[in-house]
Amino acid sequence: MNCLVVGTGGVGLIAAYTLQRNGKCQVTAVVRSEFEDVKENGYNIDSVDYGKISGWMPDRIVKSVDEASDTFFDFIFLSTKNIPDGEATCEDIVAPAVKPGTCIVLAQNGIDNEKPMMENFPESIILSGVSLIGSTRYGCNVIQNGPDNLSLGYFSHPEIDEQTLLEKAETFIDLYKNDVNTVKYDPQVRLTRWKKLVYNAAINTTTALVNLDCSRVSLCGGKELVQRPAMREIYAIAKSEGFDIPEEVQDIMLNISDGTFYTPSMLVDYRNGRMMELEVILGNPLKIAKQNRVECPVLSMLYALLSMVQFRLKEERGLVHVDDAITRPDASTYGKGFN
Amino acid sequence: MNCLVVGTGGVGLIAAYTLQRNGKCQVTAVVRSEFEDVKENGYNIDSVDYGKISGWMPDRIVKSVDEASDTFFDFIFLSTKNIPDGEATCEDIVAPAVKPGTCIVLAQNGIDNEKPMMENFPESIILSGVSLIGSTRYGCNVIQNGPDNLSLGYFSHPEIDEQTLLEKAETFIDLYKNDVNTVKYDPQVRLTRWKKLVYNAAINTTTALVNLDCSRVSLCGGKELVQRPAMREIYAIAKSEGFDIPEEVQDIMLNISDGTFYTPSMLVDYRNGRMMELEVILGNPLKIAKQNRVECPVLSMLYALLSMVQFRLKEERGLVHVDDAITRPDASTYGKGFN
Repeated sequence: MNCLVVGTGGVGLIAAYTLQRNGKCQVTAVVRSEFEDVKENGYNIDSVDYGKISGWMPDRIVKSVDEASDTFFDFIFLSTKNIPDGEATCEDIVAPAVKPGTCIVLAQNGIDNEKPMMENFPESIILSGVSLIGSTRYGCNVIQNGPDNLSLGYFSHPEIDEQTLLEKAETFIDLYKNDVNTVKYDPQVRLTRWKKLVYNAAINTTTALVNLDCSRVSLCGGKELVQRPAMREIYAIAKSEGFDIPEEVQDIMLNISDGTFYTPSMLVDYRNGRMMELEVILGNPLKIAKQNRVECPVLSMLYALLSMVQFRLKEERGLVHVDDAITRPDASTYGKGFN
Repeated sequence: MNCLVVGTGGVGLIAAYTLQRNGKCQVTAVVRSEFEDVKENGYNIDSVDYGKISGWMPDRIVKSVDEASDTFFDFIFLSTKNIPDGEATCEDIVAPAVKPGTCIVLAQNGIDNEKPMMENFPESIILSGVSLIGSTRYGCNVIQNGPDNLSLGYFSHPEIDEQTLLEKAETFIDLYKNDVNTVKYDPQVRLTRWKKLVYNAAINTTTALVNLDCSRVSLCGGKELVQRPAMREIYAIAKSEGFDIPEEVQDIMLNISDGTFYTPSMLVDYRNGRMMELEVILGNPLKIAKQNRVECPVLSMLYALLSMVQFRLKEERGLVHVDDAITRPDASTYGKGFN
């Protein structure tokens, strides 16, 4: 079998390494910025699961998904950021490699990510992978600090029966699972995604908006003033769909980063001037809230404010253009307004 | 008579120039960073009210308020930022120059600024000056783009009769008013401050939090999503004290900066890494709201989030210290949390 890994950050590279190590499939990885370095020297991996590996190389590396379109892939493991309002949608990114029968594993944050995938690739089975893993790539070095823990299941498909979907999930689990990592079949992928959103919609968002790590936000009272109220709204939206997020999840999530000065991914993106996964983390839940008439004043406010931050990031990347050339020199300094 | 101007930014310097030009008092100005330059060459003023003036010098310049404590001042015109959670409170700043009979003119943003002044200087009359003026200092250059429009009145005093207070306000108006500027006696200084807060609490705050000028915030829908709801809460708090802010004020304030890409003062402070006037603009109104049981979800959220930003600014200035030395190298990068 053939697997394509798209999104070779900390999560994607441990996935690629794991799939290749297990020896049940050929692994192709899309490597962009560090392509030449990797081609020459491979990756250096320092992993709590697998120890230190020098100069590891995927079976094949390509510079783009397009370059891999000569091959049929049984699975595409997609672990890029999901930023539909950015340079490219995930559907556009994987499109060149999706053929009839290709299964796409969405190892990404957020909710409703599978919907545009299903619309664009109606013949593909879409699996959901929710990864708990502390893994980061710096250039050609990967440091995996937390054990790999993957929950894998399938999204229901209007034209494919549940047994076929289940078998596809089990096939991927068989490729991925080994004696070191923890891979569990997840019968409720949507509930799992709601649970993870308790963290992402409340904690990622707040830290990015104020540019402070988890512990500092907590020192400022952010847990009770902003994050718990935001979490309660995620509970309410999930509930409106029939999902009961267990009560204890909120306190686990609120306290999980205590004392570690942890920098969530959205804050990392913000600090690096990269666009944030705002739509799949806040935009999509709020669409569901609107449909189901769930009041979400806190999440709505965070979304409105972060959309403005996202606008600035877009402008910095040339994705939007504001013509302030004429007015700016005067008005930005002492224009019409109140001090 | 003697006047001391503390806070020689754009507002304070036009005030100093105006008082001296009118010739009814001696003007002393506290000049800090640009002292030597001013001593040598004076200020260059480019004013819509007074034209271009080169090398203007106050009657006396001092490096600190302390240095001016040899003199009795009839009036202290205080136009510094008001940041009680910063390096120094305004009371501490003016204290060396306040003697029995000294009147303090608060030309600052915010509400309840007079309370700590009255507690610290129970013998002083406190006047309120609300200034509408587009004036900025760059080094020794002052550019005044909008005509000077000052509303001046008094804060009631528990032991001084209204007639005496009124006369003091009129005395200062007499020193300040001339044939060019607009100086009005303000019989309702608190209502005037609530009106200005409609702008400051909603527009200054939002722009600073997302680091975008007024026009860009507006492009992102910020007027209706954040600013108007925030304004409505200022209306409600003012109402709980018996003040009816006229309905039209909110639309005037929402639209006053249209098309000018205006950068409100709080955003300017943020961009310069300076602490923000958060307490007098949001903290004090929210204290009143709490006392009077006015629900303010939007302002409370803005306050909570901006307090975190303020915390970061404080930490950058060494006013708070967080000991993250042990945990940081590991945990901020791949600590315990979810991506």
